[in-house]
Order: sequence, then structure tokens, then C-alpha cells
Amino acid sequence: MEECVPVKNTGLRGVKVATTKISDVDGRAGKLIYRGYLTGDLADKVSYEEVVYLLLYEKLPNVAELSRFKERLSVHRQLPIELIETFRNMPRKALPMDVVQASVAILANYDPEIRKPSKKSTMESAIRLIAKFPTMVAAWDRIRNNLEPVEPNPDLGAGENFLYMLSGDVLDDELAGFFDTCLVLHAEHAFNASTFAVREVASTMAHIYAAVGAGVGSLSGGLHGGANTRVMQMLLEIKSLDNVENYVKKVIETGGKIMGLGHAVYKTDDPRAHILAPMSRTMGLRAGDTRWYEMSKLLENKGKAAFLEKKGREIYVNVDFYSASLYYYMGIPVDLFTPVFAISRIAGWAAHFIEEQFGGAADKPALYRPDSDYVGEYCGPEECTWVPLDER
Amino acid sequence: MEECVPVKNTGLRGVKVATTKISDVDGRAGKLIYRGYLTGDLADKVSYEEVVYLLLYEKLPNVAELSRFKERLSVHRQLPIELIETFRNMPRKALPMDVVQASVAILANYDPEIRKPSKKSTMESAIRLIAKFPTMVAAWDRIRNNLEPVEPNPDLGAGENFLYMLSGDVLDDELAGFFDTCLVLHAEHAFNASTFAVREVASTMAHIYAAVGAGVGSLSGGLHGGANTRVMQMLLEIKSLDNVENYVKKVIETGGKIMGLGHAVYKTDDPRAHILAPMSRTMGLRAGDTRWYEMSKLLENKGKAAFLEKKGREIYVNVDFYSASLYYYMGIPVDLFTPVFAISRIAGWAAHFIEEQFGGAADKPALYRPDSDYVGEYCGPEECTWVPLDER
Repeated sequence: MEECVPVKNTGLRGVKVATTKISDVDGRAGKLIYRGYLTGDLADKVSYEEVVYLLLYEKLPNVAELSRFKERLSVHRQLPIELIETFRNMPRKALPMDVVQASVAILANYDPEIRKPSKKSTMESAIRLIAKFPTMVAAWDRIRNNLEPVEPNPDLGAGENFLYMLSGDVLDDELAGFFDTCLVLHAEHAFNASTFAVREVASTMAHIYAAVGAGVGSLSGGLHGGANTRVMQMLLEIKSLDNVENYVKKVIETGGKIMGLGHAVYKTDDPRAHILAPMSRTMGLRAGDTRWYEMSKLLENKGKAAFLEKKGREIYVNVDFYSASLYYYMGIPVDLFTPVFAISRIAGWAAHFIEEQFGGAADKPALYRPDSDYVGEYCGPEECTWVPLDER
Repeated sequence: MEECVPVKNTGLRGVKVATTKISDVDGRAGKLIYRGYLTGDLADKVSYEEVVYLLLYEKLPNVAELSRFKERLSVHRQLPIELIETFRNMPRKALPMDVVQASVAILANYDPEIRKPSKKSTMESAIRLIAKFPTMVAAWDRIRNNLEPVEPNPDLGAGENFLYMLSGDVLDDELAGFFDTCLVLHAEHAFNASTFAVREVASTMAHIYAAVGAGVGSLSGGLHGGANTRVMQMLLEIKSLDNVENYVKKVIETGGKIMGLGHAVYKTDDPRAHILAPMSRTMGLRAGDTRWYEMSKLLENKGKAAFLEKKGREIYVNVDFYSASLYYYMGIPVDLFTPVFAISRIAGWAAHFIEEQFGGAADKPALYRPDSDYVGEYCGPEECTWVPLDER
């Protein structure tokens, strides 16, 4: 073990907790790499399924491999009828990420190899989960709106299937293409909070469903995956271009945050934001209403300038900043933005789970069990003396 | 931020990630302290409810406080009827920890304040969760055995209620007293893997159910809470006192592990094991069958000696080593040992969630987002060049 000075309450920022071959976030250069490939290079060239294959099998698939892989996914897209029944038993107002977290734990019960998982069976469980995420989010949205869930279409990929099952409608090809690019861009991001939660649970030798459930919980937080929903809520609250400047002023004065600006790792704009922004613009133009895109753009400029002036340092856009308006233009309900993030990120979670439990990177990982600094001096430096109940 | 040399694949062992006022594990001295009190002092003197109060409110309750607190817990013990319906829809062979993880996420839907949690409402949610854990584990066990769930008894505490709802029978006072002591001893243990998972999710500002779901997932792992089940499975496999010596020999020769020996933090016997062992003995004597206790004792001695001889260093018993035979004597199904751990540990998780999100210790915590070391040189030190699908 290398020497380490204790790190207190800094959220482990900059602490390299493990080696990984899955992805690299170069926060200074603004580069995101999936298994050797720049995501910027992949974004408009490969499908989400190719990225999933890359993350799981460490190479881009050839034609035959991709076709076989898509078939395997398509076999597993359907949900057990009992899970649909459970959805019907849930309150219509349930938070979608809670429904997803519950679903993942329930799906464990339908996996035949969950009691003694091997690397091979875990890979299979990963494919089951990746296949089912779009189906469960769409099914829940249908059920809460008193509509019948739409069966997955075996000919469609994850993104197309999600959009199809959500609306029950024929697909809009340009929109579906953009959505697939969103899935590509959100699939993996090294040791972000939810992936770290997945790896933490994996390190106890729990099964993949238990770990992914933790990832879903972590992603739901407003400082993590929940941020895309919060960006859109902010835009809806600001309402119009005219109000942007005042909003920024107010936030900066009160020491608040502009959602979608700032990131734990990037010290420059998030490379994904630069790909998402023009898609948001295109969708706005198509809809004949570029308001949400324009507001985002202005908010970015004004927010960055105000932050620099107030704090004397730069702040940058993150992935959630432009995905919000983009998803909104796509007609995705605002409270499904974070589940949509999960539909994609399940691929990265699965790859990290497998690396954590079965190795693959340089060193063997260990159970994550940190230390803490006890400052509970309730009775001074000594231990407290117990007093019987009736004398307290 | 303090300087820190990167720590790779050492599971953050010894890295103080945060300050806490909740508990202290002194691994060298073999001391475990809950908010100033030695657990050894509390174990046979206070009830589990007093410990929960201590963990949440930072003091032991007086008579009036305890009585009011028990009332609040008792109000919340019942499960929503829809959760019971969901249990009926689950496969009978579902792993109980998966059922618990699903239940926690589902219970979020029934908490009126989950959309905008404050410290006050989170404390209330904590009490709801703590109250419901025994009910859900017992209800699931009844349903999987085709029995009707037993309603919680408002006059009983967590441990008594659990035993009562599990069997539907009148209580055995000595057994119930021992069980309550088990709950006291398992309630809290600083930054163990599941609590760290809870804090990690809390740090994203997710709600308490999302975080506790992660804790349940982490606790289910065989290297963490799942170990008590595995200790009993090992004892059942060894079968009799005569086989202990050979078992130890075989394990040591093949480089295997003796379940229940060894711990990430303790460098001496786990103080909780010394309290659990005599209870296991007493229960064995009562049952007229001390086999499992005697086997554990012999396994401890032989295992420790063999480990010292082979590795040249000491190994120590942990909390799971004697809880296994003890729970077995109590008639608790082996695959409920880990859920029983959760019934108790939910108290610690709740206290840590509140400390993580609302402070209370010296410094304000931050989103846990560590770094990693990318070693994925798929195309040498350069990035890979993308090749079109049909040319791969």
C-alpha cells in the first residue's frame, strides 16, 4: 500500500482509488476516452450498441459480432409480467428513479444464475440489464399515464426502442439518431459517483443487480444524474430570454449555483456539451422554437462571465447543460431525463462491475472500506459512562 | 485539500475520507464506540431502541423520550398493502436481500416528503425505514412460505416484533433479549462498506431511500454482511466437531479463507464476537445441542493457530463468526441472517445519511467522486483510430 495522507471531507477528489482500462477523463484537455477511443470520434459514427460492445468486450464489433450482439439484447428486452404487475401496484406519482431502483432489485429474482455468478453469467446478466433498462423506463411512463405498455420491437436498438415504447408511435429518424448519440455520450465516465457506488458494492462480492441498484440510487441525486432534470426545471423557471440576465445576477448575488455549470473533474468545457449543443439547436429549429436552446446559450455566456467576475476563476458547461433542452425538444418528460441517463450509463456500470469483480485492469481491486476521523467528543476525550434509564 | 499520494486498488484502507461524530472503531484496541459509549457497556444494558435514539439524537433517551420514540416507531411499523401485494408477485425463491433492496425503493413512494426532503423530514423518513425493516423481512419470509404476514404488535420493539412476526408465536423472553443485544451490536460500525455506500449516495443529494437501497446492496455481499450466512453454511458443511481439524487443514493448504476470521479494520478480536459467543453457548445449552457453538470455538482456535503457522501473523474473529450459530439456535432461517443484520444496521445508515447531507461533524462533506488511473493502452499511448463497421 502506498503512503497516503488522510483526505478529509474532500470527496476523494483527485485520489486515484483504482486502475481501470474502461475509460479516461482528461479534465484538463477536455477529453473523454472509452477503451482507447475519443468519444468525440465515436459520437456521430457508431451506434450505442457498438459502444456497449466496446465497453464490455474491449473492442468495436465487426458486422457479424454486432448483429449477434443486437440479437442477444433483443431477446432480453421484455420484462417479466410480474414486474409489470408491480408497476400497476405503484402510486402513479412515484419518482421514476425509485421505480428503476426497485425494478433492478426485482429483476435479480428472474436471473437464473444469480446465486452463484461467474464471469460468464455476470456478462449475461449485464446484457439482460442493459436490454431491459429502456423497456422498464418506458413501461413505467405508460402505466403511470394509464396507458398499456408497448412491447419492445425486436428490430430496434436501445434508443429507438425506448422512443417507440414511450410513444407507441412510428419513429422520427433524425430524432432517433440524435437520441442514440445521447446514449453514446452518456454511456461511461470513469469513477463518477454512481459508477463508484457500483464498484463499491461490487467489491463486497454482491451480485450485479445489487450493485446497479446502488448506481441508480447515486445517479438520482441532484448533484449527479439528477442535474439534467434540474437544468430543465431552471430553464422553465426562467421562462424567456429576457429573464436570463436577471436570473444570473440573482444567483451570483445569493451565492447560488447555475445548474449545468461546473464539474468535479473537467477544468474546461465538457467535450460532450459541445456535441449536444448543436443537436439542441437543430431540434429547436425543427420545432420552430429555439427558445430553450437560445436561453441555454445565453445562460452559458452570462453565467460564465458573471462567475469569472465574482470568483476570479472560470466555470465550464457540463454534460447536463445542453442535454436538458435537447431531451425537452424530443418530447421526453422532464422527470424521465435522469432515467434516460441511466438507460445509457448501465453500460458503463456493467463494465465497471465486471472489472471490479473479475479484474482486467493492472491490479486486483480490494473491498472499498475507508477509514474516518472520529470527532465525537461527547464526554471529552474519555468514553461516556452509562447511566441507567431512570437516572437520565 | 490535503496532499495525498494516489492509493491504487487498496480499497481505501486507512484513508480517512471524512470526519464523523457517529462512531469510532479502534481496530488496535478492539474498541467500538457509538457516540461516546463503548458498545460493550451498552450491549447488555440498553435496548436497541435506546441505541437507535442515541445514534439519531446524539444522546441516550430518558424515560419520557424513549417512550415517545417507541410510539413513533410503532406508528410506522406497518407496510403499505401494495408492498405486500408486490411480495405476493415475487418468485418464492427470491434472495431476501434483493427483496429488501426492492422494498426500500418502493417505500420511497409512500413517503409524503420525499420530493423536497429537509433535515426534519429526513429524520422522519429515517424513523419510518427503521420501523419497517423488521416488518418487511418477516413479511417476506411468511409470504415465501405461503403463510399470511403477521401484523406488527404496537407494544413490541424492533427485535421482539421481528421474532413475533416471523413465527406468529408468543415470545421466548431470553431469546428475545439475546436477539435485542444482537441488534445493539450490529447497529453501527463507522465507514464499513455498506455505510460508505450510503454516504456516497447521500453525497449526490439523493434521498434517504435511494441511499439505503445502496447500503442494502453492499451489505448483501459475501465479503460484508453476507458473511454471517456464509459462516453458517460453512458450519453446516463441516457438520461435526470431528471434521473441524481437517477442514482447517484443507482451507489453509488451498489458500482459502475461513469465513468469520479476518477483518479490514480490527487487529485483535472483534469486541462484538466476545459478547456473541457466550450467547451462542447459552442457546446451545438450552437447546441441548452445543454442537454449532463447540464447532465454532474449535474452528476459531484451530483456524487461528494454522493461520499463524502458515502466514506468520495473527488472524482474529469478526462479528459474523459467532452470530451465525447464535441466529441458527434462535431458529432464524440461514438466508435471513444478512437481512437481520440490515434490520439493525439501518440505524447506523440513517445516522450517517443525516450526517452526510446535513452536517454535524467538523467539516462539511463533499460529493464522493474519486479519480482513477487509466491503464487502457489499447492502441499504445495514442488514441485509437476509428474504423468503419464494415472494415473491422
